[in-house]
Amino acid sequence: MYRTHSCGELRLADAGKTVKLSGWVQVARDFGAMTFLDLRDRYGITQLVFSMEENAELCERARKLGREFVIGIEGTVRERSNKNPNRATGDVEVVVNTLQILNASKVPPFTIEDETDGGDDLRMRYRYLDIRRAPVQQNLIFRSKLALEVRKYLGEQNFVEVETPFLIKSTPEGARDFVVPSRMNPGQFYALPQSPQTFKQILMVAGMDRYFQIVKCFRDEDLRADRQPEFTQIDCEMAFVDREAILNTFEGLTKHLFKHTLGLEFADFPRMSYDDAMRLYGSDKPDLRFGMPIVELNDLAKDKGFVVFDSAELVAGICVSGRAESTTRKDIDELTDWVKRPQIGAKGLVYVRYNSDGSLKSSVDKFFDESQLKAWAAKMDAQPGDLLLILAGEDDEKTRKQTGELRLEMGRRLGLMTPGVFKPLWVLDFPLLEWDDDTARFYAMHHPFTSPKPEDVAKMASNDRQVLKDLRADAYDLVINGVEIGGGSIRIFDRDLQMKNFELLGFTHEEAEAQFGFLLGAFEFGAPPHGGIAFGFDRLCAVMNGQNSIRDFIAFPKNNQGRDMMIDAPSPIADAQMKELFLESTAE
Amino acid sequence: MYRTHSCGELRLADAGKTVKLSGWVQVARDFGAMTFLDLRDRYGITQLVFSMEENAELCERARKLGREFVIGIEGTVRERSNKNPNRATGDVEVVVNTLQILNASKVPPFTIEDETDGGDDLRMRYRYLDIRRAPVQQNLIFRSKLALEVRKYLGEQNFVEVETPFLIKSTPEGARDFVVPSRMNPGQFYALPQSPQTFKQILMVAGMDRYFQIVKCFRDEDLRADRQPEFTQIDCEMAFVDREAILNTFEGLTKHLFKHTLGLEFADFPRMSYDDAMRLYGSDKPDLRFGMPIVELNDLAKDKGFVVFDSAELVAGICVSGRAESTTRKDIDELTDWVKRPQIGAKGLVYVRYNSDGSLKSSVDKFFDESQLKAWAAKMDAQPGDLLLILAGEDDEKTRKQTGELRLEMGRRLGLMTPGVFKPLWVLDFPLLEWDDDTARFYAMHHPFTSPKPEDVAKMASNDRQVLKDLRADAYDLVINGVEIGGGSIRIFDRDLQMKNFELLGFTHEEAEAQFGFLLGAFEFGAPPHGGIAFGFDRLCAVMNGQNSIRDFIAFPKNNQGRDMMIDAPSPIADAQMKELFLESTAE
Repeated sequence: MYRTHSCGELRLADAGKTVKLSGWVQVARDFGAMTFLDLRDRYGITQLVFSMEENAELCERARKLGREFVIGIEGTVRERSNKNPNRATGDVEVVVNTLQILNASKVPPFTIEDETDGGDDLRMRYRYLDIRRAPVQQNLIFRSKLALEVRKYLGEQNFVEVETPFLIKSTPEGARDFVVPSRMNPGQFYALPQSPQTFKQILMVAGMDRYFQIVKCFRDEDLRADRQPEFTQIDCEMAFVDREAILNTFEGLTKHLFKHTLGLEFADFPRMSYDDAMRLYGSDKPDLRFGMPIVELNDLAKDKGFVVFDSAELVAGICVSGRAESTTRKDIDELTDWVKRPQIGAKGLVYVRYNSDGSLKSSVDKFFDESQLKAWAAKMDAQPGDLLLILAGEDDEKTRKQTGELRLEMGRRLGLMTPGVFKPLWVLDFPLLEWDDDTARFYAMHHPFTSPKPEDVAKMASNDRQVLKDLRADAYDLVINGVEIGGGSIRIFDRDLQMKNFELLGFTHEEAEAQFGFLLGAFEFGAPPHGGIAFGFDRLCAVMNGQNSIRDFIAFPKNNQGRDMMIDAPSPIADAQMKELFLESTAE
Repeated sequence: MYRTHSCGELRLADAGKTVKLSGWVQVARDFGAMTFLDLRDRYGITQLVFSMEENAELCERARKLGREFVIGIEGTVRERSNKNPNRATGDVEVVVNTLQILNASKVPPFTIEDETDGGDDLRMRYRYLDIRRAPVQQNLIFRSKLALEVRKYLGEQNFVEVETPFLIKSTPEGARDFVVPSRMNPGQFYALPQSPQTFKQILMVAGMDRYFQIVKCFRDEDLRADRQPEFTQIDCEMAFVDREAILNTFEGLTKHLFKHTLGLEFADFPRMSYDDAMRLYGSDKPDLRFGMPIVELNDLAKDKGFVVFDSAELVAGICVSGRAESTTRKDIDELTDWVKRPQIGAKGLVYVRYNSDGSLKSSVDKFFDESQLKAWAAKMDAQPGDLLLILAGEDDEKTRKQTGELRLEMGRRLGLMTPGVFKPLWVLDFPLLEWDDDTARFYAMHHPFTSPKPEDVAKMASNDRQVLKDLRADAYDLVINGVEIGGGSIRIFDRDLQMKNFELLGFTHEEAEAQFGFLLGAFEFGAPPHGGIAFGFDRLCAVMNGQNSIRDFIAFPKNNQGRDMMIDAPSPIADAQMKELFLESTAE
């Protein structure tokens, strides 16, 4: 037996006991007569004591142990004279009687501490050392606990976890598929699922009533920061439900998760239409940890002789509370540069200081007198002491997005994105279709299986592009702190309506049948009304821990080139494998 | 709202309530004045009543509903005059006030009943209709519940569920990999995992201490009956453990699962060495629901002038209790044909009837007199009335396996494989290596990461093939009712020993480094002693339900050609996809 206790378990009450511990050498401190050694495992750290006086040979051996050596010891628990209140085991230490080196360790390429000196690449290459660090280990433990709570809650609610297949069929719609050549079917390929969307709908047609799955999904996309080629979804679907039932069920799930992992309770989540979110926050995923909504100033700012505003489709601003005087000229210049960066793309930034004494001072004093500025301030609900930041642009939507980005940046700069505060929000009534000018066609805003709102079904027959743009989908997103955590919709369950939607998306009947014939066929055999939602599980983990990167919640993430640095994958395969798969490579 | 209750929910106490139900039309019975309709959902069936007298128009509409139409109704619950005690809702019916057809259905290609008239191919093509059948639906619900219980139990035991990657590296050792071409790394491929073996070991090196995962694995093998290219494992690993700790932990899991799904409790599982299992049952996975062990007769049967026995390496038999007289000549002939089938490969079958009157009669009376036969009977623990069945062959191991097969066949014929009876067994001390004559090399019996038993480590340096054949691994299988449910081992955690094992398996140092360098490297940074086990989750589901086929516990299985008949995958992909992946097909 390697241990009677873990390294996080011993307390004062255990004093006097003979125990066995095993773990890693965190650090050794040599004080001449005594050597102290911190022994670490997943559960904690226990201080070991070796004494020259009592056992010189053992003490000498202990002094030769390097960092990250794996050892097993037997010893006696005793009360510490200098207790460590920051450590759960800090009241005791173990006086070692026997020491066994279970495995040696080379010197690790970076320190195994909460704050490490290892860079990203090194940490990924030696991920097994990185995971020994408590923050990463705790992230993975959190993830496991969160998954278990998801399953417990949904299990209680009669959801059945059904495993859908990984070797499925490639469909060109949506993102790019990873494909898998079939040896038994020469020239043919499976695809890895981008999501189990069609299978979960099939399960509703199959009468499973309530389905969920925590499942890996795959997208072969160029990897931007914080995207992974394989990622995990909490995938859910329900039959015989309307939107209200779905929102309530998954609001319940979300509340359960926060309560049982972070101990936080929530009132009912607010709801906001897509249109309002775009209008007020320039984003379909507003961060509600702070206010600062966008206010339109067209009626007060246009046609007053300032050409920048006059030529704009939208003049809009935000009111930064109490920052009229504490924002320096340099701050303003920096912000101006910030909004002019290509990622934001604004032409410039107009400011108005609504000073504490009630006076107003702006960068457009030449064009607007104080009474005009006062009218702006009034419209923006500004108080003396507030700073107004205003953008203008030729495209209403673009300018709103830019103003929304400026709002977020001010939130960041002013520390308004308070860690530990969570602001969930349902965003509702998304557009059904998105027009793309480049390809001159509509794309599904959510996906091709999303139902229009009942009152918009008839309008799908229209040939008027604007009517089609205005169609609203029975779709919803769950947003927390400005991050889209989940999204879903009520689905089409009528074959003809589904075919009509495919048509609007530019599918021929033949293409629709070839790719989704099985689903269209299933709709002919008694498909029930149904809808669902999918949560980004990696992102949920990160957001709940107030972190931006999903990577540290994934045990073995890939880098931006899609490579696993630790195992060195992907890699060439043997010629015999290529031949068996009826493949030749054209790579040089 | 589509429903206030499910179709399995209403009871006598609900009589008088106005309710809404939704579901599928199972069957309609028209009695002139009344129409009765069974409405079905996942939760049960409720009888609906339509009356010509009360609402002729509604009743007429109900009569036009076809099987599997999806409807929603509102109505009043009332007590039934002729109650159906076989149905949970059988005390009540719902008198319908309003009827809404939610979706029509074509006539299904097979009946949606517990016993269907649909053949395998048809059922797979219309799997969404097949899953509507209660037995299939209940299998999937059982699977979901079993998975949840696995997670609850292991979660309680401090196991962390860690998701390991699906896009990993191809390794020629073991079964054939499915591979995934990388678009971003031209000419390179990922492989889908055959198991997360190396990753779970890495997680032990990473200090995760206790890992599990219910995870899909992939093997591109020619599909025999009841093999699937994608299958599910309960994959587990623990650090700082010996075999005893692992057996206890997973015996605990198994007991928990039987208790919390089937309500069955078990005493501690028996244990048997691999050698004993082979000797007594001719199999490393004996079915212990019945006895009939193999008894060796070499000393009594050889060198008595019967050339078949004299030339044999093994003469061995089983004693079939009480079947001396009830087994006819025709039965014996049939059995003889059965053992001579190429799948079994025996040359013939010798029988001895130990009649109730104490006389003995055999098919080898010419060579053995009654006293000799009596000695056989004594050695085989036979009583008057028993039948002895004896095989002989040139190869000890083959003959034992044949006798083991005969034993199983007798178990089947005599109904000794009692449904609902479960006999778990740990099989221990497997050989480390298996010699293959064709390729003239050793293969790992479990896998290359399995540790030899501590007392056999030194013998790995031997060059004597027999010494190497006799090496015992610290490996174990969990067998239930003759089916291997799980298998695992204590792992090598020393770099040099791992390299030595690779060497015995015919790897060059370069090959070992290229394929498993990351693991060998990890062993240099403080790898703890560790071991684990993996359960075949599909098979566990089947065995616990007394079924042979795993297919009915998989929502969307593939057929023997690896095809998904419902979605029609695999399929050709677009030329543009091939080009992006730097691939050309050589298939005709």
